[in-house]
Amino acid sequence: MRTDLKSAARLLLERDDIVILTHQNPDGDTLGCAFALYYALTAHGKRVRVENEKAIPKKYSFMYENYTYTDFEPGCVVAVDIASTSLFGNGMDRYIGKVDLCIDHHKSNTDYADKTLLNCSVAAACEIVYDIILEMDGDISNEALLCVYTGVSTDCGCFKYSNTTAKAHDIAALAIDRHIDVYKVNQAMFESKSRAQLDIERIALQNLEFYHGGRCAAIVVTYELLKKTGAEESDLDALPAMTRQIQGVEVGVVIKEREKGEFKVSMRTGKHPDASVICSEFGGGGHAGAAGCTIYGEADDVLSKVIETVGRYI
Amino acid sequence: MRTDLKSAARLLLERDDIVILTHQNPDGDTLGCAFALYYALTAHGKRVRVENEKAIPKKYSFMYENYTYTDFEPGCVVAVDIASTSLFGNGMDRYIGKVDLCIDHHKSNTDYADKTLLNCSVAAACEIVYDIILEMDGDISNEALLCVYTGVSTDCGCFKYSNTTAKAHDIAALAIDRHIDVYKVNQAMFESKSRAQLDIERIALQNLEFYHGGRCAAIVVTYELLKKTGAEESDLDALPAMTRQIQGVEVGVVIKEREKGEFKVSMRTGKHPDASVICSEFGGGGHAGAAGCTIYGEADDVLSKVIETVGRYI
Repeated sequence: MRTDLKSAARLLLERDDIVILTHQNPDGDTLGCAFALYYALTAHGKRVRVENEKAIPKKYSFMYENYTYTDFEPGCVVAVDIASTSLFGNGMDRYIGKVDLCIDHHKSNTDYADKTLLNCSVAAACEIVYDIILEMDGDISNEALLCVYTGVSTDCGCFKYSNTTAKAHDIAALAIDRHIDVYKVNQAMFESKSRAQLDIERIALQNLEFYHGGRCAAIVVTYELLKKTGAEESDLDALPAMTRQIQGVEVGVVIKEREKGEFKVSMRTGKHPDASVICSEFGGGGHAGAAGCTIYGEADDVLSKVIETVGRYI
Repeated sequence: MRTDLKSAARLLLERDDIVILTHQNPDGDTLGCAFALYYALTAHGKRVRVENEKAIPKKYSFMYENYTYTDFEPGCVVAVDIASTSLFGNGMDRYIGKVDLCIDHHKSNTDYADKTLLNCSVAAACEIVYDIILEMDGDISNEALLCVYTGVSTDCGCFKYSNTTAKAHDIAALAIDRHIDVYKVNQAMFESKSRAQLDIERIALQNLEFYHGGRCAAIVVTYELLKKTGAEESDLDALPAMTRQIQGVEVGVVIKEREKGEFKVSMRTGKHPDASVICSEFGGGGHAGAAGCTIYGEADDVLSKVIETVGRYI
């Protein structure tokens, strides 16, 4: 059932022992939502815990500096920025059918929660969380605002993408007015490249190939290459946007082999064609401008399939 | 003599036949200031002309779509975002000693104008121009606001750099509220890479070397390489930031040979050490986090000199 802002805020205020779920391969938005709510709800004296498929990438550590893990039986389960239960990740199946409230901005949301607060017009789910906190408290702490800023800035490419809202800028202006060190966030999110990341990007860019008369650019990163450079999967995060920004390219694709034979496809478009529609052909999804899917097989076959499918949309 | 916002606005309202000067190798900020003022002042029935060393790069064309060149004897000369007369560029010497008003945000401003409106706390000179227009008119047109947005977003790396102000975000929020297509601006400024640019970046990244135990990263792009790839000088604009964002790098340097034996050095730091101080050793200048200079000689010698000098500051 869909719910509204006031009802969602009331539900959170009424409940205790709250578990907040983030999606697999957590990004700034899902984590920003989770920890902003954590800080806001613990300030009400509630017990709150953030749960996630596996360890949270270290680059987000500034968000959970003041987080304390607490063990309790869940009294309320909240999913943030998660469009479907398939994104819960490994080992999180126990929460399927038990989500009381989902806060999300994906149009592909499957309404798996008891109550869903959905707003697809915002850049980041963190904008909705920001409103919930203001609704609950009339104000937001600097700690929570830092998390909200992180979600907003990461989901709109640091205010660069077409999904950037006026409210995203308003939130950023408030953070700067409050002397929150947003630059530290931006550095960690956008301005920091490990040597491993540099190495893999240098090689990956050499492997970039054009298809469909230059309207599609694609990079394949094999498992061997990842191992050779010592790069982690997240070291490739900047590549999809890099493929799309080349002039004439309508669809940018990065295909990375996460495990032998398992390929994660990340697709970026200028909204048209709709990346989420293309990726849905392989059981994936996302937004019009940024989507993904997972395909199993051999590298060459996976690439051919993706390029062929892209060709039908451009 | 220094002047204030009210006096600067009054001066502009009182004068006619206004020539606006932008700095050499014009960027989004100097052009944003110029065209925002152009639109605001022509709306007052004044004759206004923007003057520049040479042709304005095509990627900024969206700013001057409604610009009409008018020939007249200057009744008032305004310099925007120009710290010193040495930045006027070739063939612009005739304006030295004749600038009535300088609007700037560089602390290195040499007070070469009759009146200087200087505010070093803003990210972009366009923020000052925005205030002048509001002071003159109580409002700003969408045309002028688009130009102001461009200057603001380009000078703060699309709201990513440490110089980003709350006001920069306020201006962006207003632009989005007014349905100005800021995404078009961001695409043209940050999200668009020509094939030539991609090619030269791919090669340049192969040439990237580390110095001083990884605390300095530098790339040299020779004249031959530029010619070979068919890249223009501006195709290298993204490289300086790319060198600096590598983990452990405090000073990122790109040395490009503009003409045979003439090397333009672009330096980026995380504010410390102060890039403008380092570059001032070679007669250059700029901001703490981003500065430049020109050195003549052989590629190897120029690189050695720069690396040696950087070493004294880190």
